[in-house]
Amino acid sequence: MEKTVDAKKASLKLANLNAKVKNNALHAMTKAVEENRGRILEANKRDVESAEKLVREGKMSKAFLNRLKLSESKLDDVVKGLESVEKLDDPSGKTLSCTELDKGLVLYKVSCPIGLIGVIFESRPDVVPQVSALCLKSGNAVILKGGSEAKESNRTLFNVLRNASVAAGVPDGWMQLIETREEVNEILSLDEHIDLLIPRGSNRFVKFIQENTKIPVLGHSEGVCHVYVDEKAELNKAWNICFDAKTQYPAACNAMETLLVHKKIANTFLPKMAERYIKAGVKLKGCARTRSILKNRNIEEAVREDWGVEYGDMILSIKVVDSLEDAIEHVNTYSSGHTDAIVTENKKNARRFMEEVDSSSVMHNASTRFSDGFRYGLGAEVGISTNKTHARGPVGLEGLVIYKYLLEGSNHIVADYMGRHAKKYSHKKLRKTW
Amino acid sequence: MEKTVDAKKASLKLANLNAKVKNNALHAMTKAVEENRGRILEANKRDVESAEKLVREGKMSKAFLNRLKLSESKLDDVVKGLESVEKLDDPSGKTLSCTELDKGLVLYKVSCPIGLIGVIFESRPDVVPQVSALCLKSGNAVILKGGSEAKESNRTLFNVLRNASVAAGVPDGWMQLIETREEVNEILSLDEHIDLLIPRGSNRFVKFIQENTKIPVLGHSEGVCHVYVDEKAELNKAWNICFDAKTQYPAACNAMETLLVHKKIANTFLPKMAERYIKAGVKLKGCARTRSILKNRNIEEAVREDWGVEYGDMILSIKVVDSLEDAIEHVNTYSSGHTDAIVTENKKNARRFMEEVDSSSVMHNASTRFSDGFRYGLGAEVGISTNKTHARGPVGLEGLVIYKYLLEGSNHIVADYMGRHAKKYSHKKLRKTW
Repeated sequence: MEKTVDAKKASLKLANLNAKVKNNALHAMTKAVEENRGRILEANKRDVESAEKLVREGKMSKAFLNRLKLSESKLDDVVKGLESVEKLDDPSGKTLSCTELDKGLVLYKVSCPIGLIGVIFESRPDVVPQVSALCLKSGNAVILKGGSEAKESNRTLFNVLRNASVAAGVPDGWMQLIETREEVNEILSLDEHIDLLIPRGSNRFVKFIQENTKIPVLGHSEGVCHVYVDEKAELNKAWNICFDAKTQYPAACNAMETLLVHKKIANTFLPKMAERYIKAGVKLKGCARTRSILKNRNIEEAVREDWGVEYGDMILSIKVVDSLEDAIEHVNTYSSGHTDAIVTENKKNARRFMEEVDSSSVMHNASTRFSDGFRYGLGAEVGISTNKTHARGPVGLEGLVIYKYLLEGSNHIVADYMGRHAKKYSHKKLRKTW
Repeated sequence: MEKTVDAKKASLKLANLNAKVKNNALHAMTKAVEENRGRILEANKRDVESAEKLVREGKMSKAFLNRLKLSESKLDDVVKGLESVEKLDDPSGKTLSCTELDKGLVLYKVSCPIGLIGVIFESRPDVVPQVSALCLKSGNAVILKGGSEAKESNRTLFNVLRNASVAAGVPDGWMQLIETREEVNEILSLDEHIDLLIPRGSNRFVKFIQENTKIPVLGHSEGVCHVYVDEKAELNKAWNICFDAKTQYPAACNAMETLLVHKKIANTFLPKMAERYIKAGVKLKGCARTRSILKNRNIEEAVREDWGVEYGDMILSIKVVDSLEDAIEHVNTYSSGHTDAIVTENKKNARRFMEEVDSSSVMHNASTRFSDGFRYGLGAEVGISTNKTHARGPVGLEGLVIYKYLLEGSNHIVADYMGRHAKKYSHKKLRKTW
């Protein structure tokens, strides 16, 4: 695909653009959004009108329409987002280590952009400025493919940002927009050219991408998060944390889906917890022991399929467990590896849970809702990854860089380090930077 | 597959085994190899006898047979390898960063094993001790699948190592051997359970693995390495480096396959270089300008397919280029992203080449043959990766770990950080370790 070839070419130049040019371009992009608010909202209005028709016909959900809709206040957030990316530290060009291999032979390990990032997203046109800023900051070229429902908005935002960045000195071609459905399938097959894919959308959408490409995918399709209330939990903390984890924003991927309770405290903990949940509108499901403790609430049975499901809604399954070990095993079986938490006053139990639970974030006496790039202080969030390689958990700009080795010699050959009179390697760590 | 389930279970326990137990087990494995030399060589003899029959029938190459054959001296290397892994630093359990999010709310980023590693390899039975030691050291469970031609050797080595490690306290199941062809295809499809695949074998073999799995693959299928002799090169250095890069060990992945020469020095550089190469038995191919300069040598034409081929042999293609830019463009078009080098006395040209060439190792006035885990001082080499994510270039033990986030709170909920009276995040870097 020509756009990919152009982007790849631009990526090689972009990789060595200095931080100042990149920041100037980010500044120009911010200004361009400010100056073109009218045009952007105008384009968005056309998308929204078509979408409203689909909502009336029952072909699109209202939530989907809300994500599609831009407003002056959403554009304020876009502008703030661009400004904050400009202020971040450039993650590329950093010397990660420096080793003298021998006299005059010095090896540098230096961070650099990954290359060409593909971003495939649904509905939200504000993804365009957000991810293109993150890619530019880290020195990566980007190919964007949004949903057809946001076609006009995406195209306008793309043109505004592309023109501003190229005028500010970013190599033309660094940012590409793809609009047809066929091109998506082509993108998924371009593992020779695209180095990393970032999908943004529903669980089903992300799962589809993950299952149909060999390009590394940064992200997670599911957030099945647990809170385990240990026998040594302080009940006030447990009520507080479990309430926050479920209800503070139930649609978020880091919201709790399953509550595990140690059998020794279930009788005292569960009734008051259930009362608070039910008052807030949470629908409860439970195992046999839970249902028996909460028998006056007459709650639904949690069947096998309930463990491991992301409701993303005001629904919660509850299970009473016999021990810390059982809790850990349940979590390692059903968790999606996103975020899980323990509430306990026993440090040993906390440590054991945190070390043995194999999830990207594991918490003690804190709500699962904290696992987020901004809350973690990463500055920006590229996404939350449940991968076991490259980047895990909330991923900041460092997830968009890799490194290369640069070896400075002065007429060094390997033959001199072989055989009977072999020269020796010193492997001395130096504090030099590239 | 039951073996995968068992290995996954064991991996969760293994992840938290302390360094001392792991080192004791490595020590026991070393001793077990020493004590079972006779049994191992006996088993290998049976494999070699069957293989020799295949060589006589022309169904197996002699090189393949050599890789299969074990000897006392190869077992010495195995023992030395195991001892050196024991001495390495444990890459897991390291606190990578610590951030106070707010008072009493502290976030640790701690390195941890990836989980379950699949290793698929051809012929060489010494892969079994080597990679199982690396996996154990880093806390990963491992599933090994060797070629049927080394069945007896692999099984014996596996039993010796597994029994010794389990007796020393490593959770049973951590190391699995797979012997049937069908099981390989199953492995490739187990992206839900296996976190990383390491293939060891021919280019074609690695390519097959890469193309038939969605599990991340650590490795490289090709090493198409270049040396560019700049117009500002000192000729003595260039002759020296180019000779080493091609001839020191031509079968290695980091040996040079294409020599690029600036037109301004081609006339003085090439004739003497060609003389040295031809004397050493290197077969030369060239572009039109090269052939004209070396017309008395009557060398073969390098056709389009020659650029981008890994000969892995005493064959070299030579191209005369007009400029540094052309050299960089040729490299970025045809290189496999493994290792490329420039020879020049001009620092600006060197820096430009090193920064603009998009390969995992880029060198200045040094032979491409240096790109190797041991030469780079990594202690052990898991493999050389041309991936753009996770690990790139020669990969040491750090390529077998990832990290997890551990958040220590004391009754912290997200709701307190929202709205009008929101508490503020401090995001203060601390020097605490987990």
